[in-house]
Amino acid sequence: MMSATVPSESMDQGTADRLRSMIERVERLESEKGDISEDIKGVFQEAKSEGFDTKAMKAIIRLRKKEAHEREEEEQLLELYRQAIGV
Amino acid sequence: MMSATVPSESMDQGTADRLRSMIERVERLESEKGDISEDIKGVFQEAKSEGFDTKAMKAIIRLRKKEAHEREEEEQLLELYRQAIGV
Repeated sequence: MMSATVPSESMDQGTADRLRSMIERVERLESEKGDISEDIKGVFQEAKSEGFDTKAMKAIIRLRKKEAHEREEEEQLLELYRQAIGV
Repeated sequence: MMSATVPSESMDQGTADRLRSMIERVERLESEKGDISEDIKGVFQEAKSEGFDTKAMKAIIRLRKKEAHEREEEEQLLELYRQAIGV
């Protein structure tokens, strides 16, 4: 078992550095995710300013996501049947 | 008022193209966001495999976010007071 799992008085410098590095990676990724969320808001603001209804747009996006998901499931099922029957 | 806001029999091709373009932009951004979420999961898996406790890591990340937020609030308040007093 690694030292990191065992609560003791302190953590050696190498382990602490590794921990800090991973925490900072997560923070950078979360920050990028936040930027993308802002970009998405921006697209909807743009759409709204052009007279589009963003609620309807969001419904379309949900429908397309559902369709894509269902298509994927159908393909996986077909693949399973193909393998079972040897087609 | 633009044609897009008024439900009528159909939408002209230009408006439809514009709508499709914006919907696809949102979908691309959402897909990028999903990729980043996967990357974040990856960092935590990596951390876990090295013996780090991801629950404690997440608590640290929350604390740092809170600290950053509080620091920002303090700075804004200081700025407000500086402007009020003219320092």
